[in-house]
Amino acid sequence: MDENNKLHMMRHSLAHITAAAVQKNWPDAKFGVGPVIENGFYYDIDLGDTKISKVDFAKIEKSMREIIKYGDDFEKIELPIDKAIAWAKENNQPYKEELLNDLKRSGTTIAKDINAEELGIATDDESIIKNVTFYKNGNFMDLCRGPHIENTKEVGVFKLMSVAGAYWRGKETNPQMQRLYVAVFNTQKELEDYIETLEQAKLRDHRKLGKELDIYTTSLLVGSGLPLFTPRGTILRDILSQYSNQIRIGYGFEKVWTPHITKIDLYKKSGHWDKFGDELFLVNSQETDDKMALKPMNCPHHSQIYASCPRSYRDLPIRYLETTTDYRDEKTGELGGLDRVRSLTQDDSHVFCLPEQVENEISNLMATASELYSTMKMKLRVRLSYRDDSNAYLGDKSLWESAQAQLKAAVVLNKLEYFEQDGEAAFYGPKIDFMATDAIGREHQVATVQLDFVQPSRFNLQYIDSEGNIQTPVMIHCAILGSIERFLSVFIEHTGGWFPFWVAPEQIRILTINNTVSDYVDEIKTILNKVVLMKPVKYNELRFTVDNRNESLGKKIREATKWKVPVQIIIGQSDKDAREVSIRTQNGESKIKLDDLAEYIQNQ
Amino acid sequence: MDENNKLHMMRHSLAHITAAAVQKNWPDAKFGVGPVIENGFYYDIDLGDTKISKVDFAKIEKSMREIIKYGDDFEKIELPIDKAIAWAKENNQPYKEELLNDLKRSGTTIAKDINAEELGIATDDESIIKNVTFYKNGNFMDLCRGPHIENTKEVGVFKLMSVAGAYWRGKETNPQMQRLYVAVFNTQKELEDYIETLEQAKLRDHRKLGKELDIYTTSLLVGSGLPLFTPRGTILRDILSQYSNQIRIGYGFEKVWTPHITKIDLYKKSGHWDKFGDELFLVNSQETDDKMALKPMNCPHHSQIYASCPRSYRDLPIRYLETTTDYRDEKTGELGGLDRVRSLTQDDSHVFCLPEQVENEISNLMATASELYSTMKMKLRVRLSYRDDSNAYLGDKSLWESAQAQLKAAVVLNKLEYFEQDGEAAFYGPKIDFMATDAIGREHQVATVQLDFVQPSRFNLQYIDSEGNIQTPVMIHCAILGSIERFLSVFIEHTGGWFPFWVAPEQIRILTINNTVSDYVDEIKTILNKVVLMKPVKYNELRFTVDNRNESLGKKIREATKWKVPVQIIIGQSDKDAREVSIRTQNGESKIKLDDLAEYIQNQ
Repeated sequence: MDENNKLHMMRHSLAHITAAAVQKNWPDAKFGVGPVIENGFYYDIDLGDTKISKVDFAKIEKSMREIIKYGDDFEKIELPIDKAIAWAKENNQPYKEELLNDLKRSGTTIAKDINAEELGIATDDESIIKNVTFYKNGNFMDLCRGPHIENTKEVGVFKLMSVAGAYWRGKETNPQMQRLYVAVFNTQKELEDYIETLEQAKLRDHRKLGKELDIYTTSLLVGSGLPLFTPRGTILRDILSQYSNQIRIGYGFEKVWTPHITKIDLYKKSGHWDKFGDELFLVNSQETDDKMALKPMNCPHHSQIYASCPRSYRDLPIRYLETTTDYRDEKTGELGGLDRVRSLTQDDSHVFCLPEQVENEISNLMATASELYSTMKMKLRVRLSYRDDSNAYLGDKSLWESAQAQLKAAVVLNKLEYFEQDGEAAFYGPKIDFMATDAIGREHQVATVQLDFVQPSRFNLQYIDSEGNIQTPVMIHCAILGSIERFLSVFIEHTGGWFPFWVAPEQIRILTINNTVSDYVDEIKTILNKVVLMKPVKYNELRFTVDNRNESLGKKIREATKWKVPVQIIIGQSDKDAREVSIRTQNGESKIKLDDLAEYIQNQ
Repeated sequence: MDENNKLHMMRHSLAHITAAAVQKNWPDAKFGVGPVIENGFYYDIDLGDTKISKVDFAKIEKSMREIIKYGDDFEKIELPIDKAIAWAKENNQPYKEELLNDLKRSGTTIAKDINAEELGIATDDESIIKNVTFYKNGNFMDLCRGPHIENTKEVGVFKLMSVAGAYWRGKETNPQMQRLYVAVFNTQKELEDYIETLEQAKLRDHRKLGKELDIYTTSLLVGSGLPLFTPRGTILRDILSQYSNQIRIGYGFEKVWTPHITKIDLYKKSGHWDKFGDELFLVNSQETDDKMALKPMNCPHHSQIYASCPRSYRDLPIRYLETTTDYRDEKTGELGGLDRVRSLTQDDSHVFCLPEQVENEISNLMATASELYSTMKMKLRVRLSYRDDSNAYLGDKSLWESAQAQLKAAVVLNKLEYFEQDGEAAFYGPKIDFMATDAIGREHQVATVQLDFVQPSRFNLQYIDSEGNIQTPVMIHCAILGSIERFLSVFIEHTGGWFPFWVAPEQIRILTINNTVSDYVDEIKTILNKVVLMKPVKYNELRFTVDNRNESLGKKIREATKWKVPVQIIIGQSDKDAREVSIRTQNGESKIKLDDLAEYIQNQ
């Protein structure tokens, strides 16, 4: 976020006010850093043995409001570094003192592990420290880069959100401090919306729903970041990837299959070894001398299929798709989530085409993404990521310019909301990043389309043009869902676990009111067994169960609802007599004639 | 093969006759070993710089026939080992001398790397050498265990098949010898059948067809034993695995998904680490301390899904299926084949059930295998692999007995041809191995069903029985296709690349005779686009192409036939006028009315 932005200044200033309020209540408080983050800021505080709890929030907020009401101006003070250190010592602020000493020790250059902006250290340019700046409001003075709002009265609306433990400078061997999170917005409405979104997000947390709805599990024996999918979760995975495939097959893609490991020679040739060698899981053969790795992406493998026979310009575009699992050796936090995994199943695809086919291919890929996310009821916008004037990019500049123009034309043609950003391209070509907005307004990066001018020549991929000359094809990388695991984490929270009918693991549950209707249940099952959905995924047979236990209807409904079964068919003797059924969905309950049941289900 | 078997003795005796014939033509010939193998025997011979080629075969065969005609008896001679060594030295047979010296050096016990039977070394019992036996026919004497036929006249029919290089005792640092392969049978008819099968197998070689039909490719950069599947090959993989899944889903199986790697802790717990640790590909995380491996099988992963929530006897059987790729660190020979790979995609499944459910579950699995292989037109027979009386087996003996009886009952119920073999069970339970016979009479081991009494308790898998007690379920492992790669190697050779219509990557090619029929082609395409096969695989959309190039019909037919497209639709102006098409298949050509086309295709 731009730090000169008013909201950023408000948040920054409120961090000072918070520290001042804490100091007022706990005069011995020692302060760490208090950077602005998304939606507000945090401040790290050491209160010795005193633990701040939520009951203290009112007290702190009260002091903050007094300071705000008092209406002090923020006053900028510059000090030479030795005077700054003396100030920290005098005021018993050992953390500030440590930062300043580090700064002094490292000469005039900012130490590598110190983020100037976060620590509020002023420099005249980006790398050379001259003086250190402080900002003062009322009696409270804090080491700070600024800028600030003029007066404490201009801080907007805020709320103390939470407090959590945090090691000083993120190191486990350092003292543990208390990190106070504060939300800050321009208006009360924005703050309330934010709080509401948080509440919603908590209810929709995919870790919580993943367990409640038996979608996936984890195992200490298998390891972190390696979720295992239960039958219900596997249905979600399969239908989503089937849908992604179906759309692309409609645009001429063909499925291929490649193994999950390779000799590292492949990545040396592709250039990935130098760039991403650290992120690879290395595989050791005990029987041979092969040096191998798990694949973190599929383009090099696909290039080998392209290279397996001679190609003519008449054969292009060649379009491969493969839903396959890649492995990335990432530091994973806790077991449990799908948003950050080490096993990423990508709905990956690669187009090999003539330079003049790029626009049409990109346009088709845009259309596939639009179709998929519109079905998911998620708004899509894209970032066009271009090169800048630096030398960080490979390939002919005029090729880049033409390619960037083709990307933009394809985006415009598909009527997608977009913005352009220089300097965000991959080193091998410009790209389009897709952002999808979920039901509670959060934006997630999901899909990507990337042009590649580099790998085709590194792998010496070729085609014969119409005049018999050898040429190099352009390669386009694209994943629509992206990683299925990550998409699922978004999709579960987007739907809150109430999956659309076509993809719900259990679409229908038949609930019997009593045991006199078993033949009628059979009749309904026969009807349902014949229904095959054709949209959005083709040949999608119904997934239904029967709850004919000797339990109360209320209990059966509660359980079906707990499982978020989208359609509950309730039948009792009177339904049987009338040859109808009661249908219960999220929208309420209604009666349907048995003869209309198949059609009703088809239209879900 | 039983060595007292007449055919075995004939082959063994012919090895001596071959060596005698070689010695007659090349008196300085030095002999290695000449063991009986399937269909005949080979003999390793060192002729110095002289290379035997196929043109020498007539000469050798002529000498052999003379020896046979002469009708010497085989005479057994016993010599103490030192005398045997002296004989070898005297006769300038350094390889025999080396074997005998090794034997002497190792005391009275046979050296570990010497296979007594193969080397023809006589022992009184299996491990203690007393004397060494020789057999003599005419002037030729050879170190040999025997037994032999009585007279050289009784050798049956034979043919010198081929000659290839082979290192002495299989070590690359040893001298290279020439290995002469000879086929031997009881009758001329058997020999001719064998040669015909070999010819057929050569034509059907899946490596050759795999390339010609563009089914898969290999890459030096990716590594050996790691095939990559092209679009055509991926269609074969997908439809076969879809079929295998479809059959099992009909029996209540549910798909699950597990990652390809795991911490080795999982295999330590399962017991695989101790037994198969050497065969694992080890995975090193550069970011964490996790010790990991690629999965060589899926049962431990599936057990973790079973263990993810409490189970009641009412929930059982729980049936998981997953078509997923396992990795085994095998020494692979040449790049190129699918029969021996390091990436094995298994159509794996695991049933967790009550002990009393075993028979029914096994019976269902038998039925799935019968259905699949009957569709493939391959005859199936099974081996019931039981325990013996040794202590090599885990689990209660009475449990084994009851389980073995249940296995047999299930096999009998399914009317499968079977034979029983003691001592062939896995240590954790009895199993059923399926053998399928291909179109040229070769038998391949394909599927397997295994009972497991061990893993469920090692993983502490549980269910609550009807009385509220904690019990351990039985686990049944089953793969029907086995490894898809290996199955494909069999299936390609079984069909000779003429895949059944439902699974052919390109099922139909429309060949135009001239360019006046393009609207008629469109009409045909519209008809074909509406055809969806439902048997044996459901929802199987047609895969067809159009060859409307400006080429002769002859050329188009030749190409379509080269690609082994099962149905070729040929259309010219007269077909269009008559509203019919010519259909060309392996069975010949016929005319079909356009109105009947869809039905005709449905019945392919």
